Amino acid sequence: MQESPAFQTVDPNFEERVHDSFGRQGFMEFIGAILMEVRPGYCEIHLPFKKEIAQQHSYFHAGVIGTIADNASGYAAYSLMPADATVLTVEYKLNLLAPGNGELLIARGQVLKPGRTLTVCRSDISVTKNGQEKLCATALVTLMTLAGKPDGPAE
Amino acid sequence: MQESPAFQTVDPNFEERVHDSFGRQGFMEFIGAILMEVRPGYCEIHLPFKKEIAQQHSYFHAGVIGTIADNASGYAAYSLMPADATVLTVEYKLNLLAPGNGELLIARGQVLKPGRTLTVCRSDISVTKNGQEKLCATALVTLMTLAGKPDGPAE
Amino acid sequence: MQESPAFQTVDPNFEERVHDSFGRQGFMEFIGAILMEVRPGYCEIHLPFKKEIAQQHSYFHAGVIGTIADNASGYAAYSLMPADATVLTVEYKLNLLAPGNGELLIARGQVLKPGRTLTVCRSDISVTKNGQEKLCATALVTLMTLAGKPDGPAE
Amino acid sequence: MQESPAFQTVDPNFEERVHDSFGRQGFMEFIGAILMEVRPGYCEIHLPFKKEIAQQHSYFHAGVIGTIADNASGYAAYSLMPADATVLTVEYKLNLLAPGNGELLIARGQVLKPGRTLTVCRSDISVTKNGQEKLCATALVTLMTLAGKPDGPAE
Repeated sequence: MQESPAFQTVDPNFEERVHDSFGRQGFMEFIGAILMEVRPGYCEIHLPFKKEIAQQHSYFHAGVIGTIADNASGYAAYSLMPADATVLTVEYKLNLLAPGNGELLIARGQVLKPGRTLTVCRSDISVTKNGQEKLCATALVTLMTLAGKPDGPAE
Repeated sequence: MQESPAFQTVDPNFEERVHDSFGRQGFMEFIGAILMEVRPGYCEIHLPFKKEIAQQHSYFHAGVIGTIADNASGYAAYSLMPADATVLTVEYKLNLLAPGNGELLIARGQVLKPGRTLTVCRSDISVTKNGQEKLCATALVTLMTLAGKPDGPAE
Repeated sequence: MQESPAFQTVDPNFEERVHDSFGRQGFMEFIGAILMEVRPGYCEIHLPFKKEIAQQHSYFHAGVIGTIADNASGYAAYSLMPADATVLTVEYKLNLLAPGNGELLIARGQVLKPGRTLTVCRSDISVTKNGQEKLCATALVTLMTLAGKPDGPAE
Repeated sequence: MQESPAFQTVDPNFEERVHDSFGRQGFMEFIGAILMEVRPGYCEIHLPFKKEIAQQHSYFHAGVIGTIADNASGYAAYSLMPADATVLTVEYKLNLLAPGNGELLIARGQVLKPGRTLTVCRSDISVTKNGQEKLCATALVTLMTLAGKPDGPAE
């Protein structure tokens, strides 16, 4: 991939904040996704294969690929947001480039353009089979900062 | 805008074929998705809420919304394909219009343009809360027909 | 699918405002696009064929199709905005469904979901050949309201 | 950006073939676009500003940005196709990252995943103002190979 541009965070506790938010997503635990790395403007999520997240050919389901593509971009964007904000996905577009055939899915989300209201990210998703990593999907994701809104469940 | 166009199937057993394929997707059972209706060029999927498929605000996770959007379009397209073909998602784009806040998610996939190789579909996704249905997302999905390839697990 | 929802405008002079903005776009005059109709949340643009806007097979160029798809959605959104705001395209996604082969291109943009900051629209684009109108493309477009920013050239 | 992966062409005359096709697009001449560079799997298009291709704020029109994004990807894909094929855009999605405010637009299209039927490309578009180049848009584009179909006007 390309070198990540260096972004400045406004919240020194961004890493803890991202981990907390990730931990509140029941769906991440349910599918078995692991938050591997967070840097300012960057997030990496790993997802080991299990048959419960497969489609009819026993590959990773496209919906699962889209899910971690969306989340990797979402948390890349969220890492740059103020401490009192939450993040919302506006839209995403996913191109599937190769079957999700392997034992591990890796999504790398990266901020392309941060903004006060909108942040645009790219996620590249690869699948690892027998130790060989291969690009299997790429996504463009638009995220929105909701300032002054806590990142927890609505009361 | 327009009434659903009427499409002709080439396979009279399309309904059984779609149900069989849906049943082979471990991920559909895992999240609790139900194939409610299949017509030529149309597919409707229902998904009751459970906390395992939520994001951090206890709404339906965007990845789950994308998943059934993709699948509703995929099976709408698959309903028009020959009996010996399988269907592959080329890409999809999802706009989230309102929070997925409710007890039931409904995805309605519809073929816009069938083709020998590529089929383009639209999925509209609504969420029902206290019996009120509300549009919460819309997707454009491009599907590919893989002729002469069985729709089961690779050997 | 559905009937156009009825939207309320906040600016009674929306129609004049849309026409003025359209008239300031040099590119619309250059390609020969005509603003045919504006209603709250709806905009229709016509574009007669000329060889200057063709691609290599003498059909309407995909870029021209994207251009009026973007604009029809943009002005559908703009019709609902306050008088002192301008509109900005955040992103769009265009599916080409049939060759743009004919004498007239018609783009119909419609608001799916208005919002204070973001508005999501759909544009359907058809081509007319020998009097027969045929859907040739569809787009999903995300627009942003820039409040308190005049809709004219930067000084 | 990232390093371009090295792709193999099947047609040694790919460069001439791309230039010929570009030359047949009336729309490229009309807006003033210049084909600057073609390599296997890569294409770069330049477009100097003129007021005829502006939107209401006197920036490059989003439709023009989409047009050269689509074309740069299209010819990146076409460079890898057999001599007797033509290329068709299936769909594209464009994110606008900054206003197209400047004197020159540059679109760099690059193949991400070539295929016998479908090729997926990315275009990055930058705008140059006072000699400073800045990323202003990015696109994902899906192209189709139409084998055995000449790349000229239909008879």
